[in-house]
Formats: sequence, C-alpha cells, structure tokens
Amino acid sequence: MKILGIDPGLRMTGYGLIEYRPLQPTQPHLLDGGVIRLKTNTSLADRLTELAAELNALLDESPPDICAVEQLYAHYKHPRTAILMGHARGVILQTAATRGIRIAEFAANRIKQSVTGHGHAPKAQMQRAVQVLFKLAEPPSPPDVADALAIAICCGQSLVGRRITHH
Amino acid sequence: MKILGIDPGLRMTGYGLIEYRPLQPTQPHLLDGGVIRLKTNTSLADRLTELAAELNALLDESPPDICAVEQLYAHYKHPRTAILMGHARGVILQTAATRGIRIAEFAANRIKQSVTGHGHAPKAQMQRAVQVLFKLAEPPSPPDVADALAIAICCGQSLVGRRITHH
Repeated sequence: MKILGIDPGLRMTGYGLIEYRPLQPTQPHLLDGGVIRLKTNTSLADRLTELAAELNALLDESPPDICAVEQLYAHYKHPRTAILMGHARGVILQTAATRGIRIAEFAANRIKQSVTGHGHAPKAQMQRAVQVLFKLAEPPSPPDVADALAIAICCGQSLVGRRITHH
Repeated sequence: MKILGIDPGLRMTGYGLIEYRPLQPTQPHLLDGGVIRLKTNTSLADRLTELAAELNALLDESPPDICAVEQLYAHYKHPRTAILMGHARGVILQTAATRGIRIAEFAANRIKQSVTGHGHAPKAQMQRAVQVLFKLAEPPSPPDVADALAIAICCGQSLVGRRITHH
C-alpha cells in the first residue's frame, strides 16, 4: 500500500511517498520525497494551476492509495498565510479526491508523536527522526519534506494499528 | 464579452454571468445566476470535488472570458471560516485558470461602490441595486447571487472604464 503525505503551501508544498509491503506490514519503505516549488512572481491562480499540474504529474507517476494531510488547526498565528495555505490545500484535496484517492487527515501533535514520540517535537527533531527511520545520509531538507513523510508515516501507523519500531 | 462573478463558499458558492455586447458596451445583460450548494454531510475533499464538477459544468455551458472574484481581506472575523472559504476559492481559481480563463480580483468596497454608490452598503441594499439594474421582479436570493452579480458588474465597469447608468 502506497501513502503520499503532503504538506501544503503556496510557496512550497512538501511531499513524501512511502509504501508498506505485505511481508513487512509495519515497515515503511521510502519511495519518493521532495517539494513542489511555485513561482512567487505569478498570480495566485497561476500558482494554483501549476500546483495542480505538478501534483497530477506525481500522482500519474506513482499513484498512491491514500493521500494524507495534516488536519486544520483551531487557531493560526498568521490568519492570512493560513487562508493562502487553504487555497493550496483545497486544490490538493480536490485533485486527489477527483482521482478517487482516499484522503486521510491527522492532527499535528499526533503526527509528531508518531515519528518522535513527542507531540510537540521541534522541526529539527522531526527531520532527524525521519532520517533515522529511513536510514538517510542526511536529514530530509527542506523540513517540508520531513513533515510530509511524517504525515505519511502517521497515516501508515494508524492503519497497521501500532507504532513503527525505531532502529 | 462574458464575465462570471463568483462568491466562493463551502456551503454555498454564488455565481452570476453577465454579458456586454458591442452595441451596448456599458450595459450589462444578465445571462445566468444561481448558487452551487454543497452537501454539508460529506468530507471536505468530496465537497471540493463536487464544487469543481459543478463549476466545470457551468463553464462548459457558457464559457466566460473572465472570472471575477472578491479580493482577500487583510483581516477576517472568523479565521476558521476564512480558511475553509480559501479551500473553495483555491479550487475555483485553479479550475478557471486551468481552462485559460482570465481571473480578475476586486476589493469588497469597490464592488459595493460600483453597484450601490456606497463602499459599505449592507447586503439588502446590494440585492436591491442588482434587482433594479437588471429589472428583476424580486431581489436575487440568496444574497450570494447578488454578491456574485455585483462582482461581475464591478469587473465590467473596470473594463469599460466608467460607471453603469442606473435607471
């Protein structure tokens, strides 16, 4: 089963694709990870169009069974940024759902908990935990990639019903 | 030239389609107006998918040259509602822009000004002004239809470069 974690943003959208295989049902395999960077000098509508096109290309290349995103918070420090993020998140959810891909949402603290064991882990700790889990030479960078992978891992754990063993 | 005004919302998205014809370049003709109502008991992703499908059907039926929307505010009274509206607005902008339709944005007070002569006109006055302008038997209802038509009218006025005469 393939899970695509997505961390939506209008400047940068992180993504991470992992797979759980039948013989290792609790062990996520890293298939892909990166960011969709959007031009900042074009209109909002053009950026959203580019985002949808890039996401469609990703989904074509390796269709996931589930797209996982972070739940919306109750409060945001920067409401305007949150509204713009909402534009990107809306396009992402609609693009995936139109293809019949299942959507799963997870609370931020649950995502952090599932990767680091702490619901309030800072970004660097998230990056480090994802690095260790996938035995990467370096922490995933920018942090948006680690966040997206963490969302996918959280989703995977919720499905296998137990925490993944850290090595 | 056809202008589709859109007032995005996750429960209800108002739309209004007007046309300016060569022989009456300052006189908007009303072609269509209504609301896209979304089921409130389905997931956010499913609602956005329904919104995109309904909008695509509208755009297929009578393709506009321009889609006009209200600009984002600097501040919102209800940030969570605004973030959800952002999801709908993002899907709308992306759906229109992907089809190559030009997008135009107008400030709320300019929209009100162009229809009623007052930048802070209440909803009822907007509905009444739109009713008079198009010689309708009743004010457009719900107000989302009047708002969408007002956005389209504001866009049209910005293009013809002068205020439309009220009768």
